Amino acid sequence: MRRPAFSRRAFAGGAAAAALAPAGLTAAQARAATQDLAHRPAARGEVRRFILYAEQLPDGQLGYGFEPGEATIPGPLLEMYEGDTLQIDLVNNLDVDVSLHVHGVDYAIDSDGTRLTNSVVAPGESRLYTWNSHELGTRDDGTLIPGSAGYWNYHDHVVGTDHGTGGLQRGLYGGLIVRRRGDILPDKQFTVVFNDMTTNNLQQGPNFAAKIGERAEFIVITHGEFYHTFHLHGHRWADNRTGFLADANDPTRVIDNKICGPGDSFGFQVYAGEHVGPGHWMYHCHVQSHSDHGMVGIFTVSNEDGSIPGPPPDHH
Amino acid sequence: MRRPAFSRRAFAGGAAAAALAPAGLTAAQARAATQDLAHRPAARGEVRRFILYAEQLPDGQLGYGFEPGEATIPGPLLEMYEGDTLQIDLVNNLDVDVSLHVHGVDYAIDSDGTRLTNSVVAPGESRLYTWNSHELGTRDDGTLIPGSAGYWNYHDHVVGTDHGTGGLQRGLYGGLIVRRRGDILPDKQFTVVFNDMTTNNLQQGPNFAAKIGERAEFIVITHGEFYHTFHLHGHRWADNRTGFLADANDPTRVIDNKICGPGDSFGFQVYAGEHVGPGHWMYHCHVQSHSDHGMVGIFTVSNEDGSIPGPPPDHH
Amino acid sequence: MRRPAFSRRAFAGGAAAAALAPAGLTAAQARAATQDLAHRPAARGEVRRFILYAEQLPDGQLGYGFEPGEATIPGPLLEMYEGDTLQIDLVNNLDVDVSLHVHGVDYAIDSDGTRLTNSVVAPGESRLYTWNSHELGTRDDGTLIPGSAGYWNYHDHVVGTDHGTGGLQRGLYGGLIVRRRGDILPDKQFTVVFNDMTTNNLQQGPNFAAKIGERAEFIVITHGEFYHTFHLHGHRWADNRTGFLADANDPTRVIDNKICGPGDSFGFQVYAGEHVGPGHWMYHCHVQSHSDHGMVGIFTVSNEDGSIPGPPPDHH
Repeated sequence: MRRPAFSRRAFAGGAAAAALAPAGLTAAQARAATQDLAHRPAARGEVRRFILYAEQLPDGQLGYGFEPGEATIPGPLLEMYEGDTLQIDLVNNLDVDVSLHVHGVDYAIDSDGTRLTNSVVAPGESRLYTWNSHELGTRDDGTLIPGSAGYWNYHDHVVGTDHGTGGLQRGLYGGLIVRRRGDILPDKQFTVVFNDMTTNNLQQGPNFAAKIGERAEFIVITHGEFYHTFHLHGHRWADNRTGFLADANDPTRVIDNKICGPGDSFGFQVYAGEHVGPGHWMYHCHVQSHSDHGMVGIFTVSNEDGSIPGPPPDHH
Repeated sequence: MRRPAFSRRAFAGGAAAAALAPAGLTAAQARAATQDLAHRPAARGEVRRFILYAEQLPDGQLGYGFEPGEATIPGPLLEMYEGDTLQIDLVNNLDVDVSLHVHGVDYAIDSDGTRLTNSVVAPGESRLYTWNSHELGTRDDGTLIPGSAGYWNYHDHVVGTDHGTGGLQRGLYGGLIVRRRGDILPDKQFTVVFNDMTTNNLQQGPNFAAKIGERAEFIVITHGEFYHTFHLHGHRWADNRTGFLADANDPTRVIDNKICGPGDSFGFQVYAGEHVGPGHWMYHCHVQSHSDHGMVGIFTVSNEDGSIPGPPPDHH
Repeated sequence: MRRPAFSRRAFAGGAAAAALAPAGLTAAQARAATQDLAHRPAARGEVRRFILYAEQLPDGQLGYGFEPGEATIPGPLLEMYEGDTLQIDLVNNLDVDVSLHVHGVDYAIDSDGTRLTNSVVAPGESRLYTWNSHELGTRDDGTLIPGSAGYWNYHDHVVGTDHGTGGLQRGLYGGLIVRRRGDILPDKQFTVVFNDMTTNNLQQGPNFAAKIGERAEFIVITHGEFYHTFHLHGHRWADNRTGFLADANDPTRVIDNKICGPGDSFGFQVYAGEHVGPGHWMYHCHVQSHSDHGMVGIFTVSNEDGSIPGPPPDHH
């Protein structure tokens, strides 16, 4: 039986992350960072319509969520296949204008989410944003139209300034994955947003967990003011669209450290513990003052029986 | 009949941009940012010789130009095919030493444009800089010699400091495109130089215009002190040499946001409004304080009949 | 007769660099920056064990070295082929804990070199770090396992802070090259580490030398706090794993300027003076204040007879 897209069940898998979550990480934040894949898209060219609520969190930060009172930072990780359409009714439960601007996919100018194009939402109102996508194609002049596949991101573009500086600072962002038919699917997904000097607006990065051999997908997004370098211990990926080499002659650089700046997003899958085994593997921004100030989390890889070598990361 | 290379007619196409130009953008600056393609190179292995003048602009900034009194910021967009040679007589109409340093192409050490190599120009004097280029080749050891094709840039290397910090700050830079035979040619070209906290030394980025379906080529260069992230709304490109996927299996990441730092340059073509339609599409640096301070412009895509949906960008 | 791996003879080739070294560059530092290739790996799947000493240099900085009293900044350039294993006994001759953390290759969690994993070395003690590597492979699900080949780096992860900020500042870093069988080998190797506002912890970048046509390999690493853009005059490379185009259709961008941040490393080979001839070619960080403050060195390409056109770089 097919799971409903974007149901609240989509967040049922956050328990493992919550168990490792540093003090101060709310359950909702843990759910936002570690999700199962119930919301994975299904048929070719599917059109799905759902509501996204922009809300204030109890601590004064802002977030997007599928249900009232369920907003998270980052917002829900959205997914679609090339050719799918998402129709998103953004409900503004804030007391200021808010919007939804997305990278990578196709939308008419009235879904741009900018004040310039009058595509923002007043308090108490809602607005439909339509995101289309397309598969690889060929133009009349023989050039290729790249498909929409990629690790993209969405965010507010209007709170605080005409570029959403205040909305981004307070948490109005999330990830969007567009997959090509045939792309291999992950077992686990982890969204890491380097936002100013925080990770997912947390002073300390969230922790993630996978069993050895599981495909763990990292979606890495940067926002705010600073550049960062994302580094993962013991695992590496190809610096291309999927993170997988396309073939044995693919010249793509394989990396474990990547510079990124505001608006950038990329993603990849690693096979947890491949060639290195289980353990508490750090991921962090490699800018020294950033990691020293807490832009660090742990990717814990356990054995099949749940055991983990080495000391518990209690001093983290 | 073949158009003369680098004639003054090369700048005839700037009207559309001028119409949208923010107050304070001079006609010359608009011409520099939006050019037609009259200066496109012609025959294989062509050798062209022309004069470039380094001059002070009326506002005290500095620029390169083809004619006395015609200097612009950025300087003229130069183009060549792999195998072509440009012989540039740099005339120094400033009261300090100036030079011409280029990225990407081939030149002997006496065309390096550095004080270290005594290849600078004293006030009132001129100097010949010779830029060669070459096609893809194979070395005796079997490795490939990459062709010179790329989106490169040229700039002063001596005004203010031995690295041209003063010259760059005041506007002595421009773009250079080297094309491979068979590369597809654009209909419009837009040069965007993120130079410290300016775009093309303007407090607000220049606006660009194209009709729907036109091939619009962006040449993006960074100079100065800061890193930036170039973002274009509603359009995206492949992060490789041309911005086009080489084939259906090309694993290159498709992006709409790219981190870059001083000396970097890249370029790509988009099909104006493809999959998204007409409108006022923003481009901007995605570093929040940079866009908030004006590193933003508009890429207006009109319908065939010239109409544009949505409100005019009067509040921009 | 095969040269012993990692012998002291490995540093015999530093004379040319020393001759050009700026005042204040010690012989050891020159040896570290310019090495011959005696330590190149040999047989498939070789396992090599050697000692690395962490020590204080006479000037108070810190370094890694193969012999007591021989520590350098950067530390020795290590090399292996995919499939090789390095077993490194790190001897701590400092008065604080030190460690060895490596990028790119395979190691169990007890070789992570972090305080989190209790894999650091107390003063006066030693610890075995084992680095494995692997060739390209295929997983059961059909995806490719990238080989370990790459331009990687190693560094302390514990001096000063839990991220080794103090150790990195004072010089505890070096390069690691993992080659794929069949990769073309260089004639000369130059390690450039942009570390905060220094190059290889020097106020002025080291100078390098090659004869025209020699394959000169640059290993470029960034550490510390700042982003940088590495620029080399007169030479360029493909922005992929090796710096060589894989084939004539390889869409990789060819560049001569690259943004990088802490933890990043890349490398490439140029053919000294190819298409441009001999001369004193600058390399530098292209961030203007960084080059102005000395993040600059010279790559001198001489004719076969040792002659070099142009003035000597005495004012550098």
